[in-house]
Formats: sequence, structure tokens, C-alpha cells
Amino acid sequence: MATERVAHWAVNLSYSSLPPEVVQSAVQAFYNWAGCALGGSAHPTTTRAHDALAPFFGQPTSTLFGRKGARTDASHAALINGIASHVHDYDDTHLETIIHPTGPVASALFAQSEALGSVTGEDFILALVTGIEAECKLGLGVWPEHYDIGWHITSTVGSIGAAVAVGKLMKLQKEPMQHAISIAATQVTGLREMFGTDTKSSIVSNDVDVQVASLGTVWEIAKNAFKPFPCGIVVHPVIDGCIQLHRDMTAKGMSAADIQSVHARVHPLVLELTGKKTPKDGLQAKFSVYHGGSVGLVLGKAGPAQYEDKVVLDDEIVALRDRITATADESLGADETEITLILRDGTTMTKHVQHAIGSLEKFVDQVSLVLGAEGARQASQTCWALQGINSVTELAKNIELLSNCTQI
Amino acid sequence: MATERVAHWAVNLSYSSLPPEVVQSAVQAFYNWAGCALGGSAHPTTTRAHDALAPFFGQPTSTLFGRKGARTDASHAALINGIASHVHDYDDTHLETIIHPTGPVASALFAQSEALGSVTGEDFILALVTGIEAECKLGLGVWPEHYDIGWHITSTVGSIGAAVAVGKLMKLQKEPMQHAISIAATQVTGLREMFGTDTKSSIVSNDVDVQVASLGTVWEIAKNAFKPFPCGIVVHPVIDGCIQLHRDMTAKGMSAADIQSVHARVHPLVLELTGKKTPKDGLQAKFSVYHGGSVGLVLGKAGPAQYEDKVVLDDEIVALRDRITATADESLGADETEITLILRDGTTMTKHVQHAIGSLEKFVDQVSLVLGAEGARQASQTCWALQGINSVTELAKNIELLSNCTQI
Repeated sequence: MATERVAHWAVNLSYSSLPPEVVQSAVQAFYNWAGCALGGSAHPTTTRAHDALAPFFGQPTSTLFGRKGARTDASHAALINGIASHVHDYDDTHLETIIHPTGPVASALFAQSEALGSVTGEDFILALVTGIEAECKLGLGVWPEHYDIGWHITSTVGSIGAAVAVGKLMKLQKEPMQHAISIAATQVTGLREMFGTDTKSSIVSNDVDVQVASLGTVWEIAKNAFKPFPCGIVVHPVIDGCIQLHRDMTAKGMSAADIQSVHARVHPLVLELTGKKTPKDGLQAKFSVYHGGSVGLVLGKAGPAQYEDKVVLDDEIVALRDRITATADESLGADETEITLILRDGTTMTKHVQHAIGSLEKFVDQVSLVLGAEGARQASQTCWALQGINSVTELAKNIELLSNCTQI
Repeated sequence: MATERVAHWAVNLSYSSLPPEVVQSAVQAFYNWAGCALGGSAHPTTTRAHDALAPFFGQPTSTLFGRKGARTDASHAALINGIASHVHDYDDTHLETIIHPTGPVASALFAQSEALGSVTGEDFILALVTGIEAECKLGLGVWPEHYDIGWHITSTVGSIGAAVAVGKLMKLQKEPMQHAISIAATQVTGLREMFGTDTKSSIVSNDVDVQVASLGTVWEIAKNAFKPFPCGIVVHPVIDGCIQLHRDMTAKGMSAADIQSVHARVHPLVLELTGKKTPKDGLQAKFSVYHGGSVGLVLGKAGPAQYEDKVVLDDEIVALRDRITATADESLGADETEITLILRDGTTMTKHVQHAIGSLEKFVDQVSLVLGAEGARQASQTCWALQGINSVTELAKNIELLSNCTQI
């Protein structure tokens, strides 16, 4: 049974058995998550969630990122930091399943680490790896049918990954760990299979068993990617190509005004997930390959600033966006595209992107918006040091001190 | 759009427009819910949930039923009272959809009423009706496909009903009410449709539109049924028939020991939902038509006491249970069954149940287990008086005083 195997593996995993590249991936995942959680802390969606939930806050054991030292109970801190870490759609991606693995797992784990106290960097990394591996193996097991019928896979397997990580942190034995997995599963699904049990449900799929069998031999966290652009990862090849075309045109003394029309051939998933023709605000634009292409061509970049509402509604961006077409081509890879510009002078330019770029440069970029440049630099150092620290509580305090001193 | 229509209807509903039988159904629904929440408050599942969540409790605004005056924030009180109200599987049923409508709605509403203060009985009834109608109309709209693919419909539409009820209590205007519905919908589903929105998702189904159109003309709360037995409602015809057969046998000087074998023809859903052959404890037994039939024949009753673990494992109950067979017959109604006993003397007895019985007698029965007979009698009077009261807070206090004084 998959639940039992996952629990067995999770309970027995030791820090010393983690390959160095897995530890490194975990630090990167945490670092990227912390940047996103800080960077998204001032977003209106995060603030709305915070304000709506404030009447229900419990004992202030855990930090609310970017809120000048404000704290709440671990459950609400996990939720609100989790929203912050995902709201810019800038978090990491397990490419095979399009799971954003670290958001749900690290948000729960960090909040509970503070509530428990005396959690070391190594404790944290071990629990993070355990949770992310369980999450991604289950995700691989149910992918793609699960996603095709409309589940948001990060939300479903993410909750299970969070339960496994927190269970590992709390040193649960096998049976309580199985219960933790099962309770997490009921909360995201409400499956009929659970009737007549104490929610001792299990995940039911042969594919899951196959994936679970590779726990500890194929490490999913090492396949994690960190988004260079704050939008759905399937848009990244088009943005990448359009930014390159922007540079090519600039080099030739041309600009977006010289473009008659744009056509992109893309993987079918691109249109399915990000086919919004006329996004009305920044949130919608994250799911518009047309907006992504337009800012890439007009502005030569596609960071959080290029997904602000005013940019989405900007006349020049909208005008070019409406001249972009895209067609699905099953022969293309998910991170591949071919873009053709028809210029007003009748000539054409094309760009073939075989694999979209990735980048870890974005931490300082987004955190600067909340902590200022110097605060972001210090927060970056603090988060990179995860592996060697004696106390996650101390790390949280240091980040929040920066937030107190330098919030802009 | 269904979300908008539901919100529009909910916001504009007034107490004076409620037909008297709808008010009466609401009082019954509340009364039945309060009995279940008190009756289930001492169940181990409720206590485990309480203990696990206690570290996260916030400001003590709201009563935890049956816990000697213990209080917590509205969110946790809603969850824990909600678990208590459903754990005996003794709550009410909207027969067309098998939704248990009052549990999720009243649990949230009662907790938030206490948190707000100064909520009258009429305020509460109006909000309860609003939430249950929205819940059941949406349920009718997605039934049966929704259920067939594995959703637990009480959990999905129940969350939306709770949001509508609490929104009504808080006098939300139409747009905030739409947001409340949408946020509730995201929390139970995580649908891809929500990508790129501020969770302004909607329920998408033509059937939903049809059902929503009858809001305020066909009242779903008036179709609500109150379970006479603490188990899945589809088992009720078999239990009803077996209790009648127990009486017939007793009248003839016979007992269960005289039974060679039992055969029941049942609606197909009975075996699909409650086909557990060898339940291991009380919770599993709720989903075993075989256990239900066995206690009905051996003991002549099927209340909470007949679903205790020791009864489920009792030699005599198990021996008869293992001699019961059931076959699905599509020609039968969901509340219909035909039971045939083959006696050891070679003769047979049959019982045809056209419509399973219903009963409101169970409040005192189950609440006595927590508050004692006199406490249950007083709690019953207190809850029946809902319509005329000035303050739900006062009602909650009175029930908890009983719990303080008379808990057994």
C-alpha cells in the first residue's frame, strides 16, 4: 500500500543518507521559497487573507513573513506565508508534474519549526527533503490523469507533502505518519473511499506504487526548477524567445513598433493553461502567453514589475499583445517554442527556443521590493546559510529584524 | 452565472418571506444538529481532533459543545462541533442528494453567531435557511455525476452552504457574498478553472443554473429527513425491516438463534456505500448493511449503543451477520427493501419495507449519554425554543451550563 510505503520510507530517512546534491537542492528550494514568501508578503491577496483570518489567530508562535515581526499560530502562519510564497506565481517547479513542490511543504515546516523551537538547519533540510520527495512521487503516480480531470496538483499532493514533512520534523513513528498522510488526503479530497474508516484512507493507484518504489533512489528535489519569470512555467519558452528577439531587434535599431504580427508555435499545454487572450489584471496576465510575449518583445523583460496591473492595461503592451497568435504543436517539447515575427517592412525574424532558461537571480529582485536592496542582500545571506544553522527560530528572527528595520 | 444568482437570492432573502413550514424545518434542523453535536461531543474521534488542534486555538469566542464550558475561536469551534455533529452518522439527510445539510452550515453559523454576539433566533434561522437552500440547490445541480466520481457531496457543497450562511449572518452585500462562495469553492476543490483569478471562480454546470432558478420557490430544507439510526441512510430500510422481523419473531416465541440465513434485496447504492462484510469497529459498522441487519434481528434496535465496538465484535452479532446476504435490485427504491429469513425449521418469513421510517425521538436518546436524562430534557427544551430567543449566545451558555452541571 502506497501510504504505508511512503510512511516507512519517510520515518527511516536519515540526514547522513542524503546525497550532497540533494542537500544542495533543498537549500536552494528553501532559499527560493523564502525569497518568494518575502517578495509576496506585501501583495494585496496576502494582506486580504491575513486580515480576514486575523480574528481567528492563536498563540503567536510563528513568524508572518514581511509583517514587521507579527506572529501567529503555526497553522495560520503556514497558510499566510504559503499564500505569499505562491501569489507571484514565481515559485519553483517540479517539471515532470508541474507541481510547485516547496510552497506547501516549506510553509508548513517553517511555521511548525518555530512553534517547536530548537530545530536545526539539518533537521529542517531532512524534513523538507522527506516531504518534497513524498509529494513528488505521489504526484508522478497520479499524473497526468489527476491533473487532466481538473485537480490543482500542487494543492492536492502538496498537502500530503506538508503532512509528511511536519510529521518527520515531529519524529512520528510509522503508524502515526500513515495517519498524518491519510488525514491530509481527506482534507484535500473527501473521497468516498474514506467512508467507514477513521480516515485511514490510502492513495489508490498502481502508478503510485511504481513511483513510490523509487523513493530514495531517484530524488525528485534534484529535478526542481526555479522560475525566472513570475508566471506559469509553460509560458517561459515564449517569454525567453521574445526577450531574445527584443535584444536582436534593439541591436538592429528596431523596436516593437516595427512588428506587424507575431506567431508562436507552442506545446498544447501552453494554450490550455495560459490561453487568456485579454487579461484584465496582473493575476490574469500570469496565465496569458500573449501578455508574456508582449512584455518580452516591448520591454525586454518579464519580472514582477511587468505583471503589475498598469502594465497589463498599458496601450502599447495591449496593442502588441493583440497582434500575437499562437498555435498548439504536439511535436514541440513543453519547454520549447518557435516564434516568428512579421515586420512592417515585410521581412520576418524567427527564434527557436529548445529549452527555456532558468535562473536563481530573482531572490534579491523580489525581496528588494519589500526589504530594500540592503535588506534583501542580508536576507539572501541568511537564507543561504540554512544548512549550518543551529536554530530555524533564530533564522526567522533575523529575517524579521531586517523586515522591521528596512521595510520600504 | 450560478454564483451570482445564488448570491443575489441569498442577500435579498428576508425572514418575513419564509413560509411557516420552512421556519419549522429550520428549527427541527437546528434541534437535530444540536442533539448530534452534543451526542457526538464525547466520541473519541471528536476528542482526538480537539486535542490535536488545541495548540492552534485562538480567542475563546465560541462554545465547544459538551466540553464543560470550554471555548475557542469560531473557526476551530465550527470544525470540532461539526465533527461531533456528524461522527455518529446520525445527522439529517436531504434525501434527493444524500447531503447531510445542517452539519457544516449550522456548525459554522453557531460558532460565528457567538463570535459576533447579539444574534437573535430569527437572524439565525434566516441565515440557516439561506445556507441550506444554497447548499442543496448546488448539490442537486451536480448530483449524481459529482458523487459518482467520488466526491463526498456534504463536504463540497456543505462548505459553500456554510459560507453563504455566515455571509448572510454578517449581512454581506452581493459582491462580497460572491467572493465568499468562490473562496469556499476553492477550498474544497482546487479547480484549474481558478487559475489566473483572485479565486473568483464559479460553479460551472447547466444543471446548477436550473436548480438555482428554483431558489425560494422549491424549499429544500422542507425535504430534510432526520435519521432514526446512526448510520448511512441507505441502510435504514434494512434495519427497519429487521427490527420489524425481530418483533414478529418475538411475538411467536422465536429469537435470532432460530434463523438459518437472511437474504435482502436492496437498492444498488446500498451495497456500493455500505457493503462492508466484516466491519472491525463501530465506525466501519456504520457502512455495513450486514451489521445493521444483524443488530436489528438480534437486538431489535440500532441506536448508538448498537454501534459500539464491543457490539460490532460480539459473537452472536457476528455469527448472524455472516449469515446475511444482500443483492442489488435496480427495481427497488432507495428507501425500499425486501428481506427473507430462512428459519432452521425450514419455514421462511419475509418483510417488504416500502419506505423506511423516520424519527425525531433521538435527541434525548443520544444527549442523555453526555448530559444525563434531565440535562438532555432541558437541552431539548432550550434548542426547540430557537425561534423566539433574543440571543444565540445565551442559548449556547444555557446548554453549556447543563453540560457543566450534569455531565455524566
